[in-house]
Amino acid sequence: MFTLGELAKAVGGSVKGDPQLAINGFCSAEQPSSGCIAFLEKPRDVEQVRTTAAAVITTDSLAGMFDNAIVATEPRRAFALVVRMFRPLPKIEPGIHERAVVSPSAQIDQSATIGPGAAIGEEVRIGPRSCIHAGVVVSAHAVIGADCEIGPNVSIYDGVRIGDRVRINAGTVIGAPGFGFTSARDGHHRFPQVGGVSIEDDVEIGSNCCVDRASLDDTVIHRGTKIDNLVQIAHGVIVGAHTMIAAQTGISGGTTLGEWCVVGGQAGFQGHITIGDQSIIAAQSGVFSDLPAKSKVSGYPAKPHRESLRVLALTFRLPEMLDKIRSLEIEIEMMRGELQSLRDRGLDLGGDLPEGKA
Amino acid sequence: MFTLGELAKAVGGSVKGDPQLAINGFCSAEQPSSGCIAFLEKPRDVEQVRTTAAAVITTDSLAGMFDNAIVATEPRRAFALVVRMFRPLPKIEPGIHERAVVSPSAQIDQSATIGPGAAIGEEVRIGPRSCIHAGVVVSAHAVIGADCEIGPNVSIYDGVRIGDRVRINAGTVIGAPGFGFTSARDGHHRFPQVGGVSIEDDVEIGSNCCVDRASLDDTVIHRGTKIDNLVQIAHGVIVGAHTMIAAQTGISGGTTLGEWCVVGGQAGFQGHITIGDQSIIAAQSGVFSDLPAKSKVSGYPAKPHRESLRVLALTFRLPEMLDKIRSLEIEIEMMRGELQSLRDRGLDLGGDLPEGKA
Amino acid sequence: MFTLGELAKAVGGSVKGDPQLAINGFCSAEQPSSGCIAFLEKPRDVEQVRTTAAAVITTDSLAGMFDNAIVATEPRRAFALVVRMFRPLPKIEPGIHERAVVSPSAQIDQSATIGPGAAIGEEVRIGPRSCIHAGVVVSAHAVIGADCEIGPNVSIYDGVRIGDRVRINAGTVIGAPGFGFTSARDGHHRFPQVGGVSIEDDVEIGSNCCVDRASLDDTVIHRGTKIDNLVQIAHGVIVGAHTMIAAQTGISGGTTLGEWCVVGGQAGFQGHITIGDQSIIAAQSGVFSDLPAKSKVSGYPAKPHRESLRVLALTFRLPEMLDKIRSLEIEIEMMRGELQSLRDRGLDLGGDLPEGKA
Repeated sequence: MFTLGELAKAVGGSVKGDPQLAINGFCSAEQPSSGCIAFLEKPRDVEQVRTTAAAVITTDSLAGMFDNAIVATEPRRAFALVVRMFRPLPKIEPGIHERAVVSPSAQIDQSATIGPGAAIGEEVRIGPRSCIHAGVVVSAHAVIGADCEIGPNVSIYDGVRIGDRVRINAGTVIGAPGFGFTSARDGHHRFPQVGGVSIEDDVEIGSNCCVDRASLDDTVIHRGTKIDNLVQIAHGVIVGAHTMIAAQTGISGGTTLGEWCVVGGQAGFQGHITIGDQSIIAAQSGVFSDLPAKSKVSGYPAKPHRESLRVLALTFRLPEMLDKIRSLEIEIEMMRGELQSLRDRGLDLGGDLPEGKA
Repeated sequence: MFTLGELAKAVGGSVKGDPQLAINGFCSAEQPSSGCIAFLEKPRDVEQVRTTAAAVITTDSLAGMFDNAIVATEPRRAFALVVRMFRPLPKIEPGIHERAVVSPSAQIDQSATIGPGAAIGEEVRIGPRSCIHAGVVVSAHAVIGADCEIGPNVSIYDGVRIGDRVRINAGTVIGAPGFGFTSARDGHHRFPQVGGVSIEDDVEIGSNCCVDRASLDDTVIHRGTKIDNLVQIAHGVIVGAHTMIAAQTGISGGTTLGEWCVVGGQAGFQGHITIGDQSIIAAQSGVFSDLPAKSKVSGYPAKPHRESLRVLALTFRLPEMLDKIRSLEIEIEMMRGELQSLRDRGLDLGGDLPEGKA
Repeated sequence: MFTLGELAKAVGGSVKGDPQLAINGFCSAEQPSSGCIAFLEKPRDVEQVRTTAAAVITTDSLAGMFDNAIVATEPRRAFALVVRMFRPLPKIEPGIHERAVVSPSAQIDQSATIGPGAAIGEEVRIGPRSCIHAGVVVSAHAVIGADCEIGPNVSIYDGVRIGDRVRINAGTVIGAPGFGFTSARDGHHRFPQVGGVSIEDDVEIGSNCCVDRASLDDTVIHRGTKIDNLVQIAHGVIVGAHTMIAAQTGISGGTTLGEWCVVGGQAGFQGHITIGDQSIIAAQSGVFSDLPAKSKVSGYPAKPHRESLRVLALTFRLPEMLDKIRSLEIEIEMMRGELQSLRDRGLDLGGDLPEGKA
């Protein structure tokens, strides 16, 4: 339990109301609970939060609606700190579980944790305070830096290089051979997949993703990039720093994404294209060609978002357009009749019109 | 081996033909085999089943084509029971495998089974007759009810709550932290993902799915819902009871699906929307807004199915529409010529037409 | 280290230049390195390769640009052999790891390898030289042939049959029960999923895929077929020989794909349809009906590729088409005015035009 004042001080916010107010915990604005401090972003939640929660963390503009509040310039980050005060990260005991299997040639930092059933191959190196959960397989020569968290049942193939503060959630596979074949009459023959994978510092990768090793060079996820669940990163893909990729997106082999891009869910990228920095790719887009920096695209094939929206809107007006065309046909038919009638009345219209047309 | 009469009695159907007929096993209508009882739904399969199988389970209307049949009001359920008679579920020995790793503080029912290599964390509770297969990781404080089956290499994060008779197939991940970040100039910072996951009774989840934990409250899969493989359920999603979700569908954070919905494969749902009960969402739809109950939608963006079909059909008539427009342009050009010809012949048409147009 | 001549001889190519030239290793054309032999396919890479690498493997037509080259009729396959000369496959020690769990009734060939933490069920058979990596679960009665490689944390359900030289990458699930239910007022009831899975010789399957067992018969992946990551193969699907399926594609239950097909990423197939041999299905297609052999389709719903392209192109001309329709409407309005003007001047145009229209 903390007072409102203690929390405000810890997160660098200012108190509105009673700094001595006791706060028992935290809650969401959607399901506020009494005695707790809620995180409030949306005006529509004001009423239920005010009548239920003890206090809020919010912006200056919304704080006026509450008797007790912490006002913060970045309320989301302030709230994240408050959550950690009430719910500290579980303390994980360092050390190698007796049911882990660690090669004698692996170098595991003394402060690292290796869970039960994990299998650590030859010459693997694991840095300080990194936690390798149960069931993880780390193959020979892979390197994992400091302060990483590798979730249960993750598979890391040989030689993969992972930086510091990287989090990889359960079931993800890093460094499997890419989908590269040479087709011949007798079948498809593997093209070598002997390149590497480099995952830089502060990258986070969700659950059940696949990041394939490159054919000859490296597949690279640059620092700070965040990847959601079930994402496919093919061989030789380069993802720039601080890019966000939502769930079930697929990036084909050899494609390069820039820095600070945002990619929606279920988007697909053709192979061997280049996407400029700070581009925004909408969910379910199909990207089949290079994009300059700061592109905003959507649709199949992906086009500038305004154009896609306009075209989509017009698509839904197709019934109306067809009706208009039919009306025009009828009008013209009638006008043709009128003109014919004029001609029939003896007006010589000259010989420039084809027979039977006018 | 059973007689036709024994099978009929066991499944609550009636015999047509010889109740003493010996049935050696079961088969499909697509690949019927002699001496066996087939399950027949489609008239097109009648001929090959009649000439091969010993008998069928089918409806009253189709049974007339066969000498020996079991007639049932729900033939699919009757056939399911027959299959179980010939092929009883494998008897799994209760007990904890010596190569499983179970925390001393975990409470495992004596009738439960824990497979080799499974890792069960602190304070975990597992109910009667539940089977935890090899390689499963169940983290601290998770609760699994009675009669559950958790497939090989499933990962269950801390605190996840699973009801009774739940089946989760191999490789699925339940309760990993959601994809929630606060973006700033220096990078993306985690927003707390400290909520829970609740999987209610009779839910089934396929292989290699992801069900993320909520940020602050709960991600909930209500009772009786069935989820296929490779499905993404993001943080804070609520799926109503008895909903069916086909493979590779993705539901973004904070979205609520109603009860008894049916979702086709590879569909995508935007975050923070609400889909009414008994809605049907076609495969590959992109749903970007709330839907009322009993909606039937398809397409990108998802619209009422009839409208989507009409628009799609018209899309494929675009070449024809463009041809019509061109014909109209030619016609009008010609008529303009005719009118000009009239004017040239000395008719004063007044000053209401712009120069150079008519 | 090898000489250019040794490499050429080993791969069946011919030397252009100095056969005694020492080659230290291999490199890609995108990132050539000195002393190495590069693989060159694209003319655009000629310049950087020529100024950096020691030699190239390429076709007759491109070799002319280089002093030292190996000319091969199939340069990709020749290069694959060169890579294996410099980087032989890691020698894996045969034998069962002491931390693997193998049922006494399983038959493991003496030359096979079973990694730590793998769990091998009753009556399982594993053939010569096959390698079962760490964390793999192979359930009862499954059969794995010779020279297979089963990646870390793969789950193979009971009774699955796998041929020779099959590679399955990490996290993939083979033989889980399919998504088959009979819906009733009280919920959805499992339809039996007691069929099998047969994976034939020389098949390769990527990471985190799902291949479900059939309901009653068999799900079959015929020989030589290659499947990328995160692919869904539902119950009862038949995939013909030598077909390629890119990442995140989903094939619904009971559908049959022919031989030598090529399927792009994120494509979806409705259930119970048949796709002819040698068909090409573009990325992100939605295939909802049978296709004859040698089809080339794309789009949603998938149509012949030329038609889809034409329709897509026209879709992006919708704004222009709407403009044209509007222009036509204005023109007709004006012409109607002209005709009215003619009529006002005393021309009797007859009674065949409706009042107020012309």
